[in-house]
Amino acid sequence: MRAVDLIRKKRDSGEHSRDEINFLISGYTRGEIPDYQMSAWLMATWIRGLSRAEIAALTEAMLHSGEVVSFPEIAGKKVDKHSTGGVGDKTSLILAPIVAAGGLHVPMISGRGLGHTGGTLDKLEAIPGFNTALTLADFRRVLGECGMALIGQTAEIAPADKKIYALRDVTSTVENVGLICASIMSKKLAEGIDALVLDVKTGSGAFIEKEEDAVRLAELMVETAQRMGKKAVALITDMDQPLGRLAGHSHEVIESLEVLKGRGAADLRDLSSELSAWMLYLGERTKSVDEGRELAQKLLASGEALEKFHRGIALQGGDARVVYDYSILPQAKNRAEVKSTTSGFLAATNCMEFGVALAMLGGGREKKEDKIDPGVGLEFHKRIGDRVSAGETLVTIFYNSDTKLAEATQRIQESFSITSQRPEPKKLIRRLVGA
Amino acid sequence: MRAVDLIRKKRDSGEHSRDEINFLISGYTRGEIPDYQMSAWLMATWIRGLSRAEIAALTEAMLHSGEVVSFPEIAGKKVDKHSTGGVGDKTSLILAPIVAAGGLHVPMISGRGLGHTGGTLDKLEAIPGFNTALTLADFRRVLGECGMALIGQTAEIAPADKKIYALRDVTSTVENVGLICASIMSKKLAEGIDALVLDVKTGSGAFIEKEEDAVRLAELMVETAQRMGKKAVALITDMDQPLGRLAGHSHEVIESLEVLKGRGAADLRDLSSELSAWMLYLGERTKSVDEGRELAQKLLASGEALEKFHRGIALQGGDARVVYDYSILPQAKNRAEVKSTTSGFLAATNCMEFGVALAMLGGGREKKEDKIDPGVGLEFHKRIGDRVSAGETLVTIFYNSDTKLAEATQRIQESFSITSQRPEPKKLIRRLVGA
Repeated sequence: MRAVDLIRKKRDSGEHSRDEINFLISGYTRGEIPDYQMSAWLMATWIRGLSRAEIAALTEAMLHSGEVVSFPEIAGKKVDKHSTGGVGDKTSLILAPIVAAGGLHVPMISGRGLGHTGGTLDKLEAIPGFNTALTLADFRRVLGECGMALIGQTAEIAPADKKIYALRDVTSTVENVGLICASIMSKKLAEGIDALVLDVKTGSGAFIEKEEDAVRLAELMVETAQRMGKKAVALITDMDQPLGRLAGHSHEVIESLEVLKGRGAADLRDLSSELSAWMLYLGERTKSVDEGRELAQKLLASGEALEKFHRGIALQGGDARVVYDYSILPQAKNRAEVKSTTSGFLAATNCMEFGVALAMLGGGREKKEDKIDPGVGLEFHKRIGDRVSAGETLVTIFYNSDTKLAEATQRIQESFSITSQRPEPKKLIRRLVGA
Repeated sequence: MRAVDLIRKKRDSGEHSRDEINFLISGYTRGEIPDYQMSAWLMATWIRGLSRAEIAALTEAMLHSGEVVSFPEIAGKKVDKHSTGGVGDKTSLILAPIVAAGGLHVPMISGRGLGHTGGTLDKLEAIPGFNTALTLADFRRVLGECGMALIGQTAEIAPADKKIYALRDVTSTVENVGLICASIMSKKLAEGIDALVLDVKTGSGAFIEKEEDAVRLAELMVETAQRMGKKAVALITDMDQPLGRLAGHSHEVIESLEVLKGRGAADLRDLSSELSAWMLYLGERTKSVDEGRELAQKLLASGEALEKFHRGIALQGGDARVVYDYSILPQAKNRAEVKSTTSGFLAATNCMEFGVALAMLGGGREKKEDKIDPGVGLEFHKRIGDRVSAGETLVTIFYNSDTKLAEATQRIQESFSITSQRPEPKKLIRRLVGA
């Protein structure tokens, strides 16, 4: 078998056998197939697509390129959630404590922010001392002790994905449902979980803008998980506007803690509760999703979920006083207001632009090596459907350096569409796949 | 400008500006754009295609990546021919002497054989001592002294093409008319010629099998040459069977000398005369192609073309006694016959397979580093339309090692289609483009 022939086959819309996919992935992981052949294959694949059988083979080849973790020493079900990412999406910080408080285990391997979206690891690291780079041994220990552990992808987990993702990023071969599915699922299936809840974002702030593409990706991921013997469901959720009221690292920790205290924005509360409910149900802690929803409410109301987060932070080296004292989080020195120039109803937002503006102010990365300023943030005062008066504040910007403030302000300003007619309210959870 | 954005643009079927093409080609030539980005762009380009404006910009960017030769010290027109290659195509060795004998100058930069086709440089090097690696200074001197000089691509000529071609070869991005056009024309336009005759092969032994694709490539090349102020014409010629009676390096030198002596196979004589006629006409040596054809015949009959080849060989360090003594060429020790198993008419050949069989026996390269055995060859006894009896010899194989003889013999045997009905005779010159 030769890589050049497999590239030609995909170029000519052929379908690869399982052996051919294994040859490509193991050869590339071992460094026997060079980057320039893999990138040609990725582009051919991006354009020609992958069949369901090819996606399954690709996911498994990437999964088995590294270690597949298992937790035989921990009794009970292990469940996780994965989100395709958006602006203000901090549900991981809320549902991991809820579900762990419910008695299940959440071994969560997360990523960092890139482009317009934030990353769970970066948000946790806003908490002084919080260590996301645990060894696998420490990951096991923390998970066993408190039911939740949140770390970054290690060198042992799906190394093929790590190498291929870096290449896709620089060769414009990212946005392809087959490649995305294999990338996400190879990592998630390596976590040793029994069930997975997927949050597939769609809309102006999501990687996948069109709902039909989001549904297709969701179907592929659910199918892949089920084929590997895992329970799985996907929620297609709205990202036409930011989730919650706050974006930025310290700000998102605060908003997560607020929800864990029974407060916070309604949309964030609702989605966190819904995702937790599905995790509790798929993890067989409750007999139905409704029962899961009730249990989640109870764990929030009793303070058990908050207490679980407190313990989790401490076990991962973080300063757990943050739970009761937000002032220990890095804060931005300055604030500025973005005001509406017109009156009417907020009809739509170009949501991705908020994330881009936040990154420009230092609250995100353009390149992998970039440092993040966790104190920078945005507060959104209006939601789609709200009445807006000229001169009213739409967004408060929390910033340190004003180098790009004017450009960021303009981007934010231009991302609001205000109309004279009240728009239809947006449905937060648009569809359910696999249930 | 960023390479990743240009890759995305082509992936999404966009059209590049001249500046974008220049950015890609100069950045890649200087090593600022890595192989893995160029190969992703090449695959997107292979699949999505290039517009005429993009092909023009690409050709010029590749041309200006290196030195563009000119010969202000040599009075009169410089003309060249380029063939897209096939089995037994040795016309360069015949028409360069004819046209030089006619008073024009032929500065010919040729390639080596790869895959199933032979290369002019390799054929010339079958002549003991013949040096195809002249410096540009020696190339000039030989051209000035005898009107013809035949060398290989130097490091100074179109370095972008050299680098891109190597990458295309290993990423299955070779067979695309836009990329082929830019590759050929960037080299040919760097030769300092006034006119170019293109021989675009089509059929079972050509890189481009379908006639419509050959016509499209021919149109693009002629248009590109004309835009750059060069006269150009393309002949679409048959490669459904080998050209002439002999294939293999020593054998092709012999057959070329036979034609220069007024003998040799009719198809090879006809095509050489036709291509020479067009070169003489485009080089303004004759007032018409007909007159060019007559002049070519005269230069063959008078021995002037043969004498010119004799002088050219000597000037490039070759043993010019070869002109009268074929025994100084490397010869294969053994011969074998491939006989027909059935009676009828030769209807078709899978011509590429003859080249592959020849390469297997040592008379071609599979990898660039492979050594060639110039003595190995094939003699074709039948042409399409000929009557064949069972037991009659179709091909004589001249070989040294019998390691792959059985496999080569079988390939050759299976490449003949013999039918009971006499087929339509093949037209050698199928079409003319740009005249």
